[in-house]
Amino acid sequence: MTDDAPSTGAPAPADDRFQRGLEGLALHSGPDALARVEQMTALAPDLGRWIVEFVFGEVYARPGLDLRTRQIVNVAALAALGNAVPQLEAHLNGALIAGVTQEELVEVLLQLAVYAGFPVALNGLTALERVLAVRAATAVSEP
Amino acid sequence: MTDDAPSTGAPAPADDRFQRGLEGLALHSGPDALARVEQMTALAPDLGRWIVEFVFGEVYARPGLDLRTRQIVNVAALAALGNAVPQLEAHLNGALIAGVTQEELVEVLLQLAVYAGFPVALNGLTALERVLAVRAATAVSEP
Amino acid sequence: MTDDAPSTGAPAPADDRFQRGLEGLALHSGPDALARVEQMTALAPDLGRWIVEFVFGEVYARPGLDLRTRQIVNVAALAALGNAVPQLEAHLNGALIAGVTQEELVEVLLQLAVYAGFPVALNGLTALERVLAVRAATAVSEP
Amino acid sequence: MTDDAPSTGAPAPADDRFQRGLEGLALHSGPDALARVEQMTALAPDLGRWIVEFVFGEVYARPGLDLRTRQIVNVAALAALGNAVPQLEAHLNGALIAGVTQEELVEVLLQLAVYAGFPVALNGLTALERVLAVRAATAVSEP
Amino acid sequence: MTDDAPSTGAPAPADDRFQRGLEGLALHSGPDALARVEQMTALAPDLGRWIVEFVFGEVYARPGLDLRTRQIVNVAALAALGNAVPQLEAHLNGALIAGVTQEELVEVLLQLAVYAGFPVALNGLTALERVLAVRAATAVSEP
Amino acid sequence: MTDDAPSTGAPAPADDRFQRGLEGLALHSGPDALARVEQMTALAPDLGRWIVEFVFGEVYARPGLDLRTRQIVNVAALAALGNAVPQLEAHLNGALIAGVTQEELVEVLLQLAVYAGFPVALNGLTALERVLAVRAATAVSEP
Repeated sequence: MTDDAPSTGAPAPADDRFQRGLEGLALHSGPDALARVEQMTALAPDLGRWIVEFVFGEVYARPGLDLRTRQIVNVAALAALGNAVPQLEAHLNGALIAGVTQEELVEVLLQLAVYAGFPVALNGLTALERVLAVRAATAVSEP
Repeated sequence: MTDDAPSTGAPAPADDRFQRGLEGLALHSGPDALARVEQMTALAPDLGRWIVEFVFGEVYARPGLDLRTRQIVNVAALAALGNAVPQLEAHLNGALIAGVTQEELVEVLLQLAVYAGFPVALNGLTALERVLAVRAATAVSEP
Repeated sequence: MTDDAPSTGAPAPADDRFQRGLEGLALHSGPDALARVEQMTALAPDLGRWIVEFVFGEVYARPGLDLRTRQIVNVAALAALGNAVPQLEAHLNGALIAGVTQEELVEVLLQLAVYAGFPVALNGLTALERVLAVRAATAVSEP
Repeated sequence: MTDDAPSTGAPAPADDRFQRGLEGLALHSGPDALARVEQMTALAPDLGRWIVEFVFGEVYARPGLDLRTRQIVNVAALAALGNAVPQLEAHLNGALIAGVTQEELVEVLLQLAVYAGFPVALNGLTALERVLAVRAATAVSEP
Repeated sequence: MTDDAPSTGAPAPADDRFQRGLEGLALHSGPDALARVEQMTALAPDLGRWIVEFVFGEVYARPGLDLRTRQIVNVAALAALGNAVPQLEAHLNGALIAGVTQEELVEVLLQLAVYAGFPVALNGLTALERVLAVRAATAVSEP
Repeated sequence: MTDDAPSTGAPAPADDRFQRGLEGLALHSGPDALARVEQMTALAPDLGRWIVEFVFGEVYARPGLDLRTRQIVNVAALAALGNAVPQLEAHLNGALIAGVTQEELVEVLLQLAVYAGFPVALNGLTALERVLAVRAATAVSEP
């Protein structure tokens, strides 16, 4: 590592990550995302702060990958792990917000059948159905 | 399911999947891929046939997702699972063949730190280093 | 691989796998299995076709292992993974259809306590209780 | 291994482990723990006996680690695995019985965000909330 | 639970499990198994005692499942978990000792491709190859 | 959340986390830890920065849990996951640096046999042996 690119050896640039994270969270997860994060982390508000500041202010804010691809990565990882269903549903929804189509999400899940097993694909489809149902119900109830 | 698109209820269209799979395997995994598959499945040649016919002739051959994205899905799932290192390396290489850049693969692994933990990102980077080293060594040794 | 046993290098024999899969699915999973597969794969009918054609028409149809043992393998793997509860229940039921006794399924789960931990055995027993309850309720309601 | 400490080569000392296990189970998991174990293992009473005799009579009874730390180990492992929610809740409760504070359990779960991913921390918090709610409801209903 | 079969509520029958375990261990894992267990558990001899006494003296000694099936269960679970390679190899070998054929082990691994993903089948085959190579080398070196 | 403790809704306090992280990293992981982090993250220096800044500057720096307990949590989680061997070894070493004794680490691993299976305990012991061997070799070579 040279002196003029000391990455690990130097602090982060000016700390606008919290503000940037708040904007990213709303943009990527919907307008009520902060309220949901605060509810989930009521017992540990610092975890909520980390989600804003680190996850959305640092990781999602990186320029090297478009948001569509980031959400496809999240869906693939969470579906493969199979033990984080609420987060899988949140990121299936986030992927749809980012412009990934329902058909593309189905393709991602079919691809996972090969590498993580058919149950991962089947349970991913079930999660996608729940997400689509919630979105349909919400859309209908809007004026 | 309508009568004129009975999917599950009807056989697959004309069975060119084995030939299509052979072409896909070479295209997506490099010219020596069939030889490697045959070596890995020496004890179970039918598994090798399924990899050609089902994995490459059916799944990869679907039009709904470009190959770059399929390989990103594979990398994300295999890195998150963490227990399939040879396959992770094969698909990091496959992703590079498909045109995913080294920088994009790094971004995929950093994104996984959030959803599958920092060790997944670190071990994914180590795997990527091994893949890059093999590719560099192979390229150097070519005329 | 010699010329007269080119396994990977040659296509599958005559493609009766879809029809064979339909028969296997009904035999191994009960008469309403196709309907359940079609419901689960409504968003991705090709996944349903793969389950018929590849899973039941290819894998289950292999002669090298009797169906009882195949279902014991499925129960052991799905219970150990612990993140595929609907599929675990389906294959506990499939094992009972194949003639594995309730007592044998209990032994399989106790054996797993050693290799995958006591929670796997306990949660497997809970799944088995649910399967037995559904079977008892269904049997009672039949004429 | 010396002659006077032949561990593996010699049987366990006088077998009071079943009685010791019964006492440990009640002490560590609450007065109704035996009843819950018997209910969970109705299909496999020997698994219940192993939990009394081996888990509590052997493992928990070892002097080398205090109970607080044992329960923190259990919470960390079960939360990280992510596929044993009933057991995670039981040991979050057991940790509170052993004197681990709610604040310490939150810290354990935040630490896991780094090594097993943010979903593990979030789902652990949700489980902790359920445990605290049950404890609050039970405490209120007592005279 | 009736009064005359109080399973959980009563201690185990006469404690011959350590001796029974020693015999089972040699029978199921080969004549040098105790030495290998003692080597693996040099830092924790009580773990070695538990393997003799609990794993082989209790679990394997149960009459409800023949040894062939127990070892198939172990292979299926350990291959599916994918993170316990030394144990997978030990039980592939144990399965061969118990009379499971190489062809049957291949079928077990192919079946797992469906439920745990193709990498599990491929890595299981690689482990089986290593086990067969060791057995061949050992057999050759015997007089 | 009250106005005077708005956690999620407000930025972190003065950002000394990078400096605090550098000190924590050296203290918790040994004097050569930064060099090892930089080597592991050569392809992704920002991951190295996150390890300093977020993992050590934020998470480890929290007052609610002593370092001994944090390292026990890490060992329990990483051993249970079973797919992050380099990190397990690093934190077994970190636990010893923090004053956890070898005997206590053995107890942690034995406890895991119950909840994650005997292979997790056995493979954890093997990792501990490697760590102890490296520490012994390093100590011997010092003047």
